[in-house]
Amino acid sequence: MAAGKRKVVGFALGDGGRVFTLPPVNSAPLGFFDSGVGGLTVVRAVQELLPAENILYLGDTARLPYGSKSPETIRQFADEDVRFLIARGVKAIVVACNTATAHALPSLHEKYRIPILGVIEPGVEAALACPNAVRIGIIATRGTIRSHAYQHALALRKTGLMIHGQATPLLVPLIEENWIDHPATRQVLKTYLDPLVEKGIDTLMLACTHYPLLIPVLQQLLPAEIRLVDSATTCAEHLKKELTRLDLLEPTDRDGALELHLTDLSEEFESLARQFLKKSPGRIHRAVLGI
Amino acid sequence: MAAGKRKVVGFALGDGGRVFTLPPVNSAPLGFFDSGVGGLTVVRAVQELLPAENILYLGDTARLPYGSKSPETIRQFADEDVRFLIARGVKAIVVACNTATAHALPSLHEKYRIPILGVIEPGVEAALACPNAVRIGIIATRGTIRSHAYQHALALRKTGLMIHGQATPLLVPLIEENWIDHPATRQVLKTYLDPLVEKGIDTLMLACTHYPLLIPVLQQLLPAEIRLVDSATTCAEHLKKELTRLDLLEPTDRDGALELHLTDLSEEFESLARQFLKKSPGRIHRAVLGI
Repeated sequence: MAAGKRKVVGFALGDGGRVFTLPPVNSAPLGFFDSGVGGLTVVRAVQELLPAENILYLGDTARLPYGSKSPETIRQFADEDVRFLIARGVKAIVVACNTATAHALPSLHEKYRIPILGVIEPGVEAALACPNAVRIGIIATRGTIRSHAYQHALALRKTGLMIHGQATPLLVPLIEENWIDHPATRQVLKTYLDPLVEKGIDTLMLACTHYPLLIPVLQQLLPAEIRLVDSATTCAEHLKKELTRLDLLEPTDRDGALELHLTDLSEEFESLARQFLKKSPGRIHRAVLGI
Repeated sequence: MAAGKRKVVGFALGDGGRVFTLPPVNSAPLGFFDSGVGGLTVVRAVQELLPAENILYLGDTARLPYGSKSPETIRQFADEDVRFLIARGVKAIVVACNTATAHALPSLHEKYRIPILGVIEPGVEAALACPNAVRIGIIATRGTIRSHAYQHALALRKTGLMIHGQATPLLVPLIEENWIDHPATRQVLKTYLDPLVEKGIDTLMLACTHYPLLIPVLQQLLPAEIRLVDSATTCAEHLKKELTRLDLLEPTDRDGALELHLTDLSEEFESLARQFLKKSPGRIHRAVLGI
């Protein structure tokens, strides 16, 4: 279907037997979820590439972070996040969190029929798009590294890779403290990255949606020949392809709306949201899960 | 009642109308809760002072940390934690978490009749026990500092104090990464503490149950004349006084048992528990709240 046309998908019975029209699916919002506001780096990349899309974002700030928690708990939280978004009529879901993608995406695919995209496959595709990528470093939360989801996805697509995963649990707290230019952050980064540099990596995957904010510091600290691949822009490109393939692109040219729901509200989350989004997040709603 | 005697408190009807004896209240466990395993520093201090007490500890590891979250959310979580402990028959509850004490203790006192002790009053008492304490620094999570609970408690007890609160949100992640002796930790500590030292503090309150692990580094970094007051030992002493006053001390001389319940289990939490407790935590149970 060409963009610009609308399709009416169906009718539903409302309370009291009244019939009302469902909105065309293509104009339904895209649903995003993350443990917190880090996934807004993905939203920003999507807004740049697909400005007409309406976006409904859920950040589970009451229970963040996911990165240090067990696979079982992450799967339970991700399931509740997805149900929240489906109940609000999203047309597709982006798991804008590497840890949740690593541990929960397969079980979400089994359980739900709505298109659900993660951040790992797009990152892996982008990393391997360069034929010279052979020695690949991955920095991520402990949960993502331990899941081996990146390591498996890389090894499945290309043989002969040297893959080095490095858990970097202090980076999210440092970013959330807004200490990006602080000497302590450089020291932490050096401790984490020196072993990868010594192993001669040619590609560094930033496998956490918070990490794009570190790109300027990483560019200063790392040898220029190491290519950086982040979750945000690669995921946005993958999403565009998928929405096109599924004929789910928003048909209008208007700027889409962003609706932000957080399970815990605070000034810090609002200020972090602004930082990740590089603009005002607008009014933030308090989300209650499991209802 | 003298220690050594048991009192039988009552009878209850079980399923099928059979009558069974309730255990004497004094032998019931003490309940502790914290957002994670940091509160085990308080447990360790209590075990040293009151070795016969049985202890039931709940760590809400699935939703940790509390320190960065809103007062409303912390009150809700603390309420669920207390209900979990009461349902398991504890005789008194210790809120082994500064953030939860700061935001939730007053509402818990209003709602429940069981004795509930926090970590703030004991710390404040201990800080002011020294008559020379005039310029007092407080380091804590953002939530604890913002609550002004320490600042109010200090000002209520003594006039003319100079009180300086400093939020130190990176210390918990650094301790949990076990980077206590890492140069980055020293750099972070210097950034946080230099302004307090410049203000001439004579006392530094470690207002987070994780922080006792930093005492050796703090002793190296700070001028020797600054007195350190931590939450763990002061709380244990206060608890002993309260249990004596309420005639609730465990009457036997046997070593008490420790039962650990966490809302999320992982190898890291187990290894951290060992670190905070300075011994094996034994078998850890998975807790499900709200049931």
